[in-house]
Amino acid sequence: MSAAPFAFSMRVYWEDTDAGGVVYYANYLKFYERARTEWLRARGIEQLALKEQIDLVFAIRSLSVEYLAPAKLDDALRVSVELIERKPVQFSLRQAVIHETSGATLSRADVHAVALKASTFKPRRIPTELLQRLYNA
Amino acid sequence: MSAAPFAFSMRVYWEDTDAGGVVYYANYLKFYERARTEWLRARGIEQLALKEQIDLVFAIRSLSVEYLAPAKLDDALRVSVELIERKPVQFSLRQAVIHETSGATLSRADVHAVALKASTFKPRRIPTELLQRLYNA
Amino acid sequence: MSAAPFAFSMRVYWEDTDAGGVVYYANYLKFYERARTEWLRARGIEQLALKEQIDLVFAIRSLSVEYLAPAKLDDALRVSVELIERKPVQFSLRQAVIHETSGATLSRADVHAVALKASTFKPRRIPTELLQRLYNA
Amino acid sequence: MSAAPFAFSMRVYWEDTDAGGVVYYANYLKFYERARTEWLRARGIEQLALKEQIDLVFAIRSLSVEYLAPAKLDDALRVSVELIERKPVQFSLRQAVIHETSGATLSRADVHAVALKASTFKPRRIPTELLQRLYNA
Repeated sequence: MSAAPFAFSMRVYWEDTDAGGVVYYANYLKFYERARTEWLRARGIEQLALKEQIDLVFAIRSLSVEYLAPAKLDDALRVSVELIERKPVQFSLRQAVIHETSGATLSRADVHAVALKASTFKPRRIPTELLQRLYNA
Repeated sequence: MSAAPFAFSMRVYWEDTDAGGVVYYANYLKFYERARTEWLRARGIEQLALKEQIDLVFAIRSLSVEYLAPAKLDDALRVSVELIERKPVQFSLRQAVIHETSGATLSRADVHAVALKASTFKPRRIPTELLQRLYNA
Repeated sequence: MSAAPFAFSMRVYWEDTDAGGVVYYANYLKFYERARTEWLRARGIEQLALKEQIDLVFAIRSLSVEYLAPAKLDDALRVSVELIERKPVQFSLRQAVIHETSGATLSRADVHAVALKASTFKPRRIPTELLQRLYNA
Repeated sequence: MSAAPFAFSMRVYWEDTDAGGVVYYANYLKFYERARTEWLRARGIEQLALKEQIDLVFAIRSLSVEYLAPAKLDDALRVSVELIERKPVQFSLRQAVIHETSGATLSRADVHAVALKASTFKPRRIPTELLQRLYNA
């Protein structure tokens, strides 16, 4: 009984591309981050509120990315998010960028996030109520 | 009998903000460009196809922007597009960025676009069929 | 007896270009901002220190840009900064992007900046000592 | 008898930061790419010329990045490049972002690059003359 992973839909615009005619490699990290933001929002978590109300930000500690095929201007993409590790101060996500019309996987990433105090950038525990929203959805 | 201007809805993500806590001033030009791209798409015009099939790109010749109030992380925005000048090789658009929940206008821009040959960057006439899609919607 | 305007030297990288094969129009605003930052630094003004020590940020209120010819990957550019209006809470700059090898002007901009409280984004006077650094260099 | 790795010096500007007050995680990939571009240029390799003259681009196939400590506005950074694997169609680089004044390593990355035909994005051998510039410097 497994649910499909969370997916965020988006378009490629001129800003995303480079002179090679395809999406610039750093911009996939923007796409992955947009999808994580919407995955959090779908769990009722707004990051600006977290920062201002409980002094918490999620930071990326490490990641690995594969680039399998290029995305191009005007492409419709679907960016997935799947939780693969749940801990009290950190979690890991598996993500992918899928080409909407062909279904091809263009990129894959494993992303390791950690909770920090927004004011000091020191690691901190994720409050229980927040952990439940994150991990039990 | 006037129609509401075209509007494109979007969110502010971390990538759009800067250390001042608000959207970085150059990134409004990305938002304006996304809205123009969707305005073209709503008229049946796909820019990658234009470039590859008839060697035409639209380039921005000049623009002016006002920044009235800052957009912030997680804000829902509406970016409008209104045609204010129609000519055979160029056109002008009036655009605005509206804060979705408050209705406040955060930024306004006038943008002057011109048709170029994609391969040489020389000005060229816009083909009649394309002019009709652009100007008569 | 007039001095040459301040100039900042930089290169075009892949990140700056788009699928048209040239620098994306919003990225010129990054180039203009880098040059303003170095122009401030040359006057002994570090913006992070300003923000943290006297709660002041400079924000752009409005600007106009002309795009005259495209910059390309690997181009060496020179971005100029010239003060054209000095007031107690605001100032205006004239800027240009020059192609280093040809000397061609690729873009020109007039930029209107204002001093704000970093914490509230309300306009504020520029302290006298800072005004002197800004306007008397 | 080992040489110090190639290093590229740069500054952090507003465009690089986000509302967390630090450099946005995707922008380190821009810094890494700028350093690789200058590492190539130091070997006499200009990428726009490669693309136009021999239809070759270097693309990133995969990478892993660690984020150890945040870079901030106005920081002076040094980005290193070290060749760790040399093959006929691909190579791997180890890179790091160093904080200029403290000497602290802020980020580390391993980057795997491949030579492609610019027109088709198919893998291709790197011509011998180019291999020698790349690998024997």
